[in-house]
Order: sequence, then C-alpha cells, then structure tokens
Amino acid sequence: MAQLSQQELDEIYAFALDIGKRAGKLLLDGVDKRIGGVDGSGELAFTEKDNAVDIVTKTDEDVETFIRSAIQERYPSHKFLGEESYSKGQSRHYLIDEKPTWCVDPLDGTVNYTHLFPMFCVSIGFIVNHRPVIGIINAPFMNQLFSSCAGRGAWLNERRQLPLIRNPSIPPMPANAPSKCIFSCEWGKDRRDTPDGNLHRKVESFVNMAAEIGGRGGKGGMVHGVRSLGSATLDLAYTAMGSLDIWWEAGCWEWDVAAGIAILQEAGGLVTTANPPEDPANAPIEEARLGSRLYLAIRPAGPSETETGRQTQERVVREVWRRVRALDYSRPGA
Amino acid sequence: MAQLSQQELDEIYAFALDIGKRAGKLLLDGVDKRIGGVDGSGELAFTEKDNAVDIVTKTDEDVETFIRSAIQERYPSHKFLGEESYSKGQSRHYLIDEKPTWCVDPLDGTVNYTHLFPMFCVSIGFIVNHRPVIGIINAPFMNQLFSSCAGRGAWLNERRQLPLIRNPSIPPMPANAPSKCIFSCEWGKDRRDTPDGNLHRKVESFVNMAAEIGGRGGKGGMVHGVRSLGSATLDLAYTAMGSLDIWWEAGCWEWDVAAGIAILQEAGGLVTTANPPEDPANAPIEEARLGSRLYLAIRPAGPSETETGRQTQERVVREVWRRVRALDYSRPGA
Repeated sequence: MAQLSQQELDEIYAFALDIGKRAGKLLLDGVDKRIGGVDGSGELAFTEKDNAVDIVTKTDEDVETFIRSAIQERYPSHKFLGEESYSKGQSRHYLIDEKPTWCVDPLDGTVNYTHLFPMFCVSIGFIVNHRPVIGIINAPFMNQLFSSCAGRGAWLNERRQLPLIRNPSIPPMPANAPSKCIFSCEWGKDRRDTPDGNLHRKVESFVNMAAEIGGRGGKGGMVHGVRSLGSATLDLAYTAMGSLDIWWEAGCWEWDVAAGIAILQEAGGLVTTANPPEDPANAPIEEARLGSRLYLAIRPAGPSETETGRQTQERVVREVWRRVRALDYSRPGA
Repeated sequence: MAQLSQQELDEIYAFALDIGKRAGKLLLDGVDKRIGGVDGSGELAFTEKDNAVDIVTKTDEDVETFIRSAIQERYPSHKFLGEESYSKGQSRHYLIDEKPTWCVDPLDGTVNYTHLFPMFCVSIGFIVNHRPVIGIINAPFMNQLFSSCAGRGAWLNERRQLPLIRNPSIPPMPANAPSKCIFSCEWGKDRRDTPDGNLHRKVESFVNMAAEIGGRGGKGGMVHGVRSLGSATLDLAYTAMGSLDIWWEAGCWEWDVAAGIAILQEAGGLVTTANPPEDPANAPIEEARLGSRLYLAIRPAGPSETETGRQTQERVVREVWRRVRALDYSRPGA
C-alpha cells in the first residue's frame, strides 16, 4: 500500500497548485482566441467557420496534454487518468487502484465553456489508496481557485479557508433542513422521456425538495433555493465553501468529482451515495465510493446545542434520501 | 416628455458606474464582516448570535441608503425607487412614469448572499420615458461588472463588449433552437403544491424544454443545458453576454430587471413576455412591459444565411412559447 509523508504530499500539492494555475490560464487563452483578445479587438485565432464545439474540444485536449506531460515529467511513477483519454478509449471501466493516481478533468462544465458561461473549470485530483487527498479546482473566468491537501485545509484563492463561515464557529446544518438549505442539482444529459426514467425520477426528486412543507404527501422540503450550475466539480467546490448546503447528482464520472471530493472532505463536508437505501432512517451512512457515479454531498457543519456537526449532516442525508428517487446509472463492466 | 442629450446620458452613466462600483464594495465589506476580514483572521463585526438573515437585511438597507443618498445629492430632480423602500411600504403598485427614474435593487440574489454563494449583485437601472437606458450590475464576488448606456454599448468590466462573441460576427440563434441553447430558469418562491399552480406549471415547462426531441408529445426541446442561478438580474446579464441563450421567468419586480433589461437591449438582446399568447406561432412579439412581472429574454443574435438576427430571435421566442405554460403573477392593484 502506498504511503506518502506529509512532506511528500506538500511537495505534490505545491506542484498541483502550479499546474492548476497554468491550466486555468490555458482555458482563458481559449476564451481569448474565440473573442479576439482581452478587449475583443485582437486577432481571432479561429475563423468564423470553425465550429465552437471543435474549438472547445481542441482546448480540452490541449489542457489535458499539458497536465499529463507535466505530471509524467515530474512524477513518472504516478498513474494518470484524464477525462479526454477515457473518452477516446473504448472502455469506461473504473481504473483507479491503490497506487498514487492523478485524476484530471481538463475542462469541467464543457457546455458552459462552449457558451462562455463562467461556470467552467479545470479539476485536478490526486488519489492515494482510493482516497482523494489533493484537489485543485480553478475557475479562471471568476478568479476562483479552490485547493486542498490532506492535513493542510481547504482554501479559496490560497487565502480564505473553507468553509468561509468558520469564525467563531462553523454553523450546524439547519434544525429543520432541508428547509433553509440551498439545494444544488443538475439536469444532466439523460433526457429520455421514458416513464419513470432518470429524467422523471430526477424531476420528481427536485420537486419534492422544493415544494412547501406539507406538500407532496409530506415530502415537501421547502429548500431555500434550487441551483443548477452545469458543473459537478464546481457544485462540490461551492458545497465545500459552505455556499451550497446539499448537492445531489448521479451520472458523473470520477474525473468530475475526484478533486471536489478531496476539497469537500478536507473542509469537513460529507459525501455519500445519492440513491436512498431501503431504510433511509436507519441505514449506515457510508462514504461515497469513487467511481460509483452516485453522489450526495453535505456542506461542512459544526455542532448544534444537541448534536455533533456530523450528526447534523447525517440528519440531512436522511432527510434528502426520504425525498429523492434512486437513479439508474451503471457503468460498462461494473 | 423627458428628453436627455447623449452628453447628459454619458454624465449620468459615469456617475452610475461610480456608485455601482462603490456599492459592490459595500456588499463585499458585508461578506468580510461575516467571515472575519479578507483572510478570515480579522475581527468579526457581528457576533455569533447575530442572525445571518438580519445581517443581510442590514447590508441590503445600508447599500440602498448609500445609493439613494448619492443620487438625491447629485440629481435631486430624479425619482428613486428601491427594492428596500418598496418592501417596507404597503403597496407594490407600479410607480414608474415618464420622468427620469432610478430603479435599484441594492442586493439581488439575497438567498445567494445569505449563503455566500457568489451569484449576488447590486443592480442600478436608470429609466426615461419608461425605457431602461442605463444599467449597472456589479457582482463583486466574481469580479464581474456589467454596464450599458443607450448609444454606448454594453460591457463587461468596461473592457469587453457584449455579447462576448461578436468578432467577426454575432452568431445567429441555432437553426434548431431551443436545441443547442442554454435555458435559464428559476424555481422562485411560490412553492405551493397546488394542482396546476405556478410551481407545477413551471416544472412542466422546464421538462418540456429539457426533454429529448420527440418526447413530451412533440414538445421536447432538448436544450443544451438548464441553469438556475437564483438571481434574475444576473440571468439577464449573462443573457446579454451571450452565455445564456434563453431566460424565462415570472414573478420578478421591476428593480430585479430594470438594469438587466437596459444591458440586454443595448447588447442587442430581445425581451418580451413569458406567457404564451393564444397563437404563439403568429402573435406579434412585443417588448416586455416593465412592471409586468413576466419576462422572456433571448440573447443578442446576428443574421443567419436566411434570416435577420431579429428573425432568429423571434423564431426562438415562438419555440419557447410553444413549450411553456402561462404563469399567474399579478400585482396588487394591477
């Protein structure tokens, strides 16, 4: 089993931060190439006839190549898994083992990037013994760099520790959660209009979380707000920040979530499975399995007068499970 | 009828930009007071016992007072309507007439601000003859300042003209829209679980826009993405930017949209009513009436090979109307 000292981890963290910053710059360069420089007056690197999707694909591949090359040069013994390399291969089998592994999405929020909606980012996770221990998420259009290293805390722009509200104490989850919570969810790509298919199960779950207390046959959660950003990675980053209280999603791959889970867990958040167990009120709450494609994340929480922080989080997990439907996302070979 | 020269408008625009920047700084100061200074280590201006909602209310009121005072000092003859002043009064009647009027939301995205989710902003609109002619939207946590003045274009951070993709030409709306479009919508505050109430009509509309082509009895729109940000003002700003293609929402007030409409229209976007007319395919597409609480916005669009930009936008308006339900938002006294 691989063991890394804190000093080794710190060195890898510094390296990861550096490539995360440079990769974010490459994503912004890709924006500039499409709009003609910083003030829109420069020369376009692409002609009008270039398809926006092709341009985005090229940036995506270039950023992955940059990150992969940098890692292979510095840490030749480490494994590398990138979203782009997966997509081109025939298989989406789960490939992570106990060895030190980099799990990278060069461009998360691809649809957002295509449309130049700011919620896109590069996501770099470093995993040892199946556990994401370093996470870098750089959303350069919003000047937001999220990072964490096991034992070193989770940070926004290397300056503000996550969650943001922590002084004098991190607030517990609300007593009557999911009420007073911001609930983040995504519509995803599976839009088949199949009776009881994923789309309809998701929407039923969203409405249960949103509807007034007493509505939906007692399932109404009256959340404070429902948000959909189009980036699983940033959903996790904002949950670590404490800005989103609950994130519930299925269908994402390990490169979408590896860095986000590292940051969320280092900040004190909880991540478990999206699909409710048979007995939501009493089932054990296990850590989400990377590669499971089913995630429910709860923000960092401190103690209330009667509960530990973890107890307030687990209470919310059960309240969400009570309101959501199981989703059907398997993976080839799994 | 009030008439202002371009020079007068330019002066008002410079003034509005200045107070928009200063108001954005006040919103960030409010964040710092809650998390203890820029690095989280400073002294908290509020104690643990202060309710987050009360703190937000105080910031909201302070920012409105700042903006109102600045305007009254510089332009004592102008009318001023602020979200906070409305809320405290008994009436929500529509108060805008042909006189030069400032319509201000000191803090749009209040729920986001309470949770420190970055999608909050100050919104300052200046209206003459019922038409928003100057708009300032400052989202300081993301370093995004949107602005426009009639005749001077719409801008991001005073540097990048909107829409962002405009060189060598602004793209038309997609041929098969709403497919390939990002659709932005909000769940809002009306969560009553009433059969055929606003919540269920909204959700039915969202699902129609999202579902696969051929689904939903032919209404499936298969949009590229569905987004919910929790700020009507920023929805409009991002539509002006070209990042969101379609925004459909009801229930917002004039202070939520005045600045956003100014910016969207100056950028070349279209804004009309959310509620589909009896004959969506042929009804005239009229400009949204400020105060109507019903809005459908389409991003700026250039010509295709067979259509003008406006024609591509109007085609999308009709495609949206075909898929959405009419919503019930009246106003007291209207």
